[in-house]
Amino acid sequence: MASPSASAESNLDIDYVLVYRFSPQDKNKAISNFQNLVRALADVGLETEVRNGEDSTLLVFVKAADEKIFNEVVYRSRVRDWLHGARQAQPDTGTENVLTKEPLVPAERLRLVYDMITSEPSEGGAGITPKHGVWENVESIFPLHDVRLNKEWMTEWARKTFLSPQDIDSVRDNLGEKIAYYFAFLQTYFYFLIYLAAFGFSCWVLLGYFSMIYAVVNCLWCVVFVEWWKRQEADLAVRWGVRNVSAIQKGRREYQYEKETKDPITGETVKWFPATQRLQRQLLQIPFVILAAIALGTLICTCFGIEIFISEVYNGPLKSVLVFIPTVLLTTLLPTISTFLTRFATRLTEFENYETEDAYEKAMTSKVFVLNFITSYLGIFLTAFVYVPFASVLVPYLDIFSLTVKPFAENEKQMQTPPAYTFTINPDRLRKQVIYFTVTAQILSLALETVVPLITRKGTTKFKEIQSSRAEAKGGAAPPPSANDQPEEKAFLARVRHEATLGDYDVTSDLREMCIQFGYLSLFSAVWPLVPCSFLINNWIELRSDTFKITSECKRPIPQRADSIGPWLDALGFLTWLGSITTAAVVYMFSNDGVGPSGRPSDIKLWALLLSVFASEHIYLLVRLAVRTVISKLDSENMRKERAERYMVRKRYLEETGLSVDKKTRHSLRTSSASSGGGLTKDITRKSLEDEARETTLRESTPVTRFWGRQKGWAEVEQVGVNLIELKLEGSAETKKGR
Amino acid sequence: MASPSASAESNLDIDYVLVYRFSPQDKNKAISNFQNLVRALADVGLETEVRNGEDSTLLVFVKAADEKIFNEVVYRSRVRDWLHGARQAQPDTGTENVLTKEPLVPAERLRLVYDMITSEPSEGGAGITPKHGVWENVESIFPLHDVRLNKEWMTEWARKTFLSPQDIDSVRDNLGEKIAYYFAFLQTYFYFLIYLAAFGFSCWVLLGYFSMIYAVVNCLWCVVFVEWWKRQEADLAVRWGVRNVSAIQKGRREYQYEKETKDPITGETVKWFPATQRLQRQLLQIPFVILAAIALGTLICTCFGIEIFISEVYNGPLKSVLVFIPTVLLTTLLPTISTFLTRFATRLTEFENYETEDAYEKAMTSKVFVLNFITSYLGIFLTAFVYVPFASVLVPYLDIFSLTVKPFAENEKQMQTPPAYTFTINPDRLRKQVIYFTVTAQILSLALETVVPLITRKGTTKFKEIQSSRAEAKGGAAPPPSANDQPEEKAFLARVRHEATLGDYDVTSDLREMCIQFGYLSLFSAVWPLVPCSFLINNWIELRSDTFKITSECKRPIPQRADSIGPWLDALGFLTWLGSITTAAVVYMFSNDGVGPSGRPSDIKLWALLLSVFASEHIYLLVRLAVRTVISKLDSENMRKERAERYMVRKRYLEETGLSVDKKTRHSLRTSSASSGGGLTKDITRKSLEDEARETTLRESTPVTRFWGRQKGWAEVEQVGVNLIELKLEGSAETKKGR
Repeated sequence: MASPSASAESNLDIDYVLVYRFSPQDKNKAISNFQNLVRALADVGLETEVRNGEDSTLLVFVKAADEKIFNEVVYRSRVRDWLHGARQAQPDTGTENVLTKEPLVPAERLRLVYDMITSEPSEGGAGITPKHGVWENVESIFPLHDVRLNKEWMTEWARKTFLSPQDIDSVRDNLGEKIAYYFAFLQTYFYFLIYLAAFGFSCWVLLGYFSMIYAVVNCLWCVVFVEWWKRQEADLAVRWGVRNVSAIQKGRREYQYEKETKDPITGETVKWFPATQRLQRQLLQIPFVILAAIALGTLICTCFGIEIFISEVYNGPLKSVLVFIPTVLLTTLLPTISTFLTRFATRLTEFENYETEDAYEKAMTSKVFVLNFITSYLGIFLTAFVYVPFASVLVPYLDIFSLTVKPFAENEKQMQTPPAYTFTINPDRLRKQVIYFTVTAQILSLALETVVPLITRKGTTKFKEIQSSRAEAKGGAAPPPSANDQPEEKAFLARVRHEATLGDYDVTSDLREMCIQFGYLSLFSAVWPLVPCSFLINNWIELRSDTFKITSECKRPIPQRADSIGPWLDALGFLTWLGSITTAAVVYMFSNDGVGPSGRPSDIKLWALLLSVFASEHIYLLVRLAVRTVISKLDSENMRKERAERYMVRKRYLEETGLSVDKKTRHSLRTSSASSGGGLTKDITRKSLEDEARETTLRESTPVTRFWGRQKGWAEVEQVGVNLIELKLEGSAETKKGR
Repeated sequence: MASPSASAESNLDIDYVLVYRFSPQDKNKAISNFQNLVRALADVGLETEVRNGEDSTLLVFVKAADEKIFNEVVYRSRVRDWLHGARQAQPDTGTENVLTKEPLVPAERLRLVYDMITSEPSEGGAGITPKHGVWENVESIFPLHDVRLNKEWMTEWARKTFLSPQDIDSVRDNLGEKIAYYFAFLQTYFYFLIYLAAFGFSCWVLLGYFSMIYAVVNCLWCVVFVEWWKRQEADLAVRWGVRNVSAIQKGRREYQYEKETKDPITGETVKWFPATQRLQRQLLQIPFVILAAIALGTLICTCFGIEIFISEVYNGPLKSVLVFIPTVLLTTLLPTISTFLTRFATRLTEFENYETEDAYEKAMTSKVFVLNFITSYLGIFLTAFVYVPFASVLVPYLDIFSLTVKPFAENEKQMQTPPAYTFTINPDRLRKQVIYFTVTAQILSLALETVVPLITRKGTTKFKEIQSSRAEAKGGAAPPPSANDQPEEKAFLARVRHEATLGDYDVTSDLREMCIQFGYLSLFSAVWPLVPCSFLINNWIELRSDTFKITSECKRPIPQRADSIGPWLDALGFLTWLGSITTAAVVYMFSNDGVGPSGRPSDIKLWALLLSVFASEHIYLLVRLAVRTVISKLDSENMRKERAERYMVRKRYLEETGLSVDKKTRHSLRTSSASSGGGLTKDITRKSLEDEARETTLRESTPVTRFWGRQKGWAEVEQVGVNLIELKLEGSAETKKGR
């Protein structure tokens, strides 16, 4: 039992905290909505407590106290899992001791309580949807952090190189499978990176850049990693008992149906929306992608052009400063356009009107991936496949960018593009760019993700403190929310109020970041073999900083189930495929240290380029097939366990039906039929056979009964057969003699 | 009830006929083995009758007569299906009236009886394995043809253009799903061919050969067809209730395990064979494929070289005769080598030692496909991609083949290869070859399949008759097997004896034939747009001739279940993919009517060829993705039904558990908690709140109980919350005033 002093760290059995924010303008509405909330929670059997919150908020604490009701919820959920195939064994009937037989981990408990709070009343929940409809005053629903566990994670993991499977399990037990999949992915990726980093480093030392050997190993590594992760994913799903949970589709509340029909067979109410209409709406993705490509592409190309113009054509004053123009342009405009396009993508996905959360997420992910693909890789693609082969052709046209430096140039000559034949490309440009994206940008994003929010938050807290102390000085301050707190609850409530101000953690954006990072590796790592080393170091920190983000900078996430990292898996597969093409092209074009096969990039033969790409891609496809086959053959402990469980279920069921024809009944079958036949000892000759037949003809009437009545019982069949054999053998013996 | 005269057509309720062949040398063994057979059948509850057969054979007739036992078999099978997910609804318990509730179609009855005869005693069967171990005397097990239905099929289908879904269902009901899938595939293929044939004919008239428009439509058609068939397959599986039956794996009797271990969890006996060892054995496929490619390739290349030498270099006497040398060589040697390689492939597949029939079949199919791929397409590939681009380079080397015509040539000049620059290729060669393979060879194979066996069989019957009448004339003939027949059974038994002499029908070889045919369409149809027309006509006949083969030239097949056409589906996908490459290459190379882009085939640009291939392949991949997406969105009657059924099962189960928290219990929850709270009417001010708190502190001891004890019941929570809101609003009003 927790001692009274531990109160700030303990969660006091609280499952969820609801932040109720009311508008000071409408007192009656504030009160009646609050009453509705408390009653709705009580209706589904949840116990509540209310405390004061910051500003115009109340904190409603919720716990599933009634054991009988919660047991029923658990049992129902297990039955649903079983019916959808997410669970092998049928749950034992009787709800009294579900929890003692198969205890719940915290994440499962939180998931089920969340379901009680949010699922539709028709499904047995309170139907509370934060910021939506009648529940607009409910600002958020969140569970409380497990402070001790969070501290343990932070301190322990900082000392470790690898997380153990138990660490990942503990993430799953406390934050749910969706986040645990992210950690498992990061961990597997990190583990795989060690080998590639070691190999990449050796290649860098021994073979230099654009090494074919490194390129081949890199591609192979990508294939093996992706295929292995697929298997790992399935394995974890079995380990965590979430296999097939994606089959349990969660309906989207925003889904707008055209009409409600009754299914003619089941009587189920179906919310119908025509698939053709959705297909038409999905076709809007094509103009969207074109729009995004044009918008982002133009920006990136322009900046690229300006940069080349300034760094390689312009040679007037202030060159070292002016060279940053494009970077400034990119860093200011790119996020703006991206944000705009993402918002547009969200709108579009909403317009496509998906029925389930999964379908929505998948559609959204594919759009986000396209946007990220353009912003992340287009620059390098331009350098590798436009600047290098065509620079001498394109450079003369760059003088349109002279406008950007006109105010600084002293004369026209400083901005004159050189004639095509004298221009030489800068072979280091590609490598520098790759290094920028795989080292500098990674460090920057890490900083942006963790350090900046930390500083911002500290700043705001300070600002608020100063503000409130000023107001106090003026004398007219509202009492702080902690004014009414019980002394022993003060520390605890302060923590809750702090957690309520934190943002939500979004695992998808972290996953996206990792996928984009993987893309640099699969697409361009041949340019600079140290890429995996950089990522190795980065990802060690990434995992810890994500842990810090989840535990300290965000509200504790609401546990969600998952049986995969979802649509990002397809993105990984696509990047690996594309990698087989770009790597081959890059290695061919830059073999001989970045200046083409015969020393000059203009000597690139299109047919040789295409042939290397074609060969590389098809080798990739073959290798993928082989790797898949081999990996699918490998067995794992968890898979074995699952098979065993399935076998047990079947065996038990078949034993229960008790239908096996066992030896005893069999023997009795034969003896009874023998005795009914009766002719066992009778000597049956051809004569007696005919007698029997005649007899039968008299007795029976249809051909069928006559046919089957000739020999009665197995013993007679046996006897007749033996006689026939003997007759035949005699006959053949006679024939032989006769000859 | 059947009239006595109908006896030859009726099957007299017989389920199976076993042909028991004994050796005249060992009488005792013949008798004891026969006794064992009859007893084993009686043991599992099968009724038997015995009759005389041809030569040294007996005919053992089997029927599942005991209703109780057969009901149990049916019930057990349904439970097994349900446990493996091949069946949605759990079968009703109680075996008495399984058959009245869900009657069996003939194919299912036959399948189950066959299981009773052949499955292992441990699984409740008689364990009879024809020609194997102790059952070596059992020559064959076969069901009897349904004569009336066969006649109906033959006459009705000959008058129809399309089979109706009911016709396919009737195949399924009588011959099982595996064969029905073949018919459904043939039918779908035929239906799709109509469109392509019409388009191909118009293209032939309007656009000539090597039309890009035709090529694009052809590729698209292939993609749509393959994707549609996948869907159709799934749809039929639902319609026939065989979805997921492939999950019910049938063990192979020939499987050799290294050791038998007990599973530590389930106690199940596992026949263990190391997967790594199998993988090593599978690696032998690589040398096998190389061997096959070399053996078949050398033969085909040699014949190809000789043919070109004779037809295009040699101009001595007998040219018109000598030109057939390669054809004669091919037609004699190719089948020999193929048979040898197939036998080798079978050995190899057996050596790979698969545990299940499915895995074995899959491995065997892939090998057979490779062999067929080489023999069917290599010749055309040589013409298109070796002869056309490189003929002028290679022709001078052809003089090694002058040996073949040396005896006939009058002087050296007649066999002299022309110098490279004067040699012109024969642009019609490719087209002629495609026409040969898609018209002539199809007709030949049709004839070989149906007409030849008919003639052979008629011949043998005649020969036997003549022989026996001669023997009779000599006086020493053994009595004919019909000597002892009951007069009314004579006609019937003659039919059975005839059916016993027929061969087995192998649906795989027919499927293979169709896949290879599809390959010509996807790979080379751009060469000659009339290919689909030829196949359209051919396949109309093919379906009827296959029906004839099944009903008249083979034993009635033993029904097998399937939920797909199996590994051939992959072959179709592969051929479509490859088609996107070859079609692009062929169209590019032969654009401008067979002589390359600028009039001469030597003007083929490698980069342009590679670029067209690369583009075509990736467009194919994109189109396939789009087609898949669209087709997956389409709903069908059967799918809807299946979903409805699944929903019903879930609904029923959840209703049975009766766990939904309904309005009534909910309301009682709230009222009970309100009354226990009791403070509903009490006016709670800040003062009274604190009193309450102090009171609680005295009563309880842990922080948790103290925290949750502050407000008792939902009503008090509501009251406290309302008070807090009021306090806050007052506070903020005061602050405003203060300012």
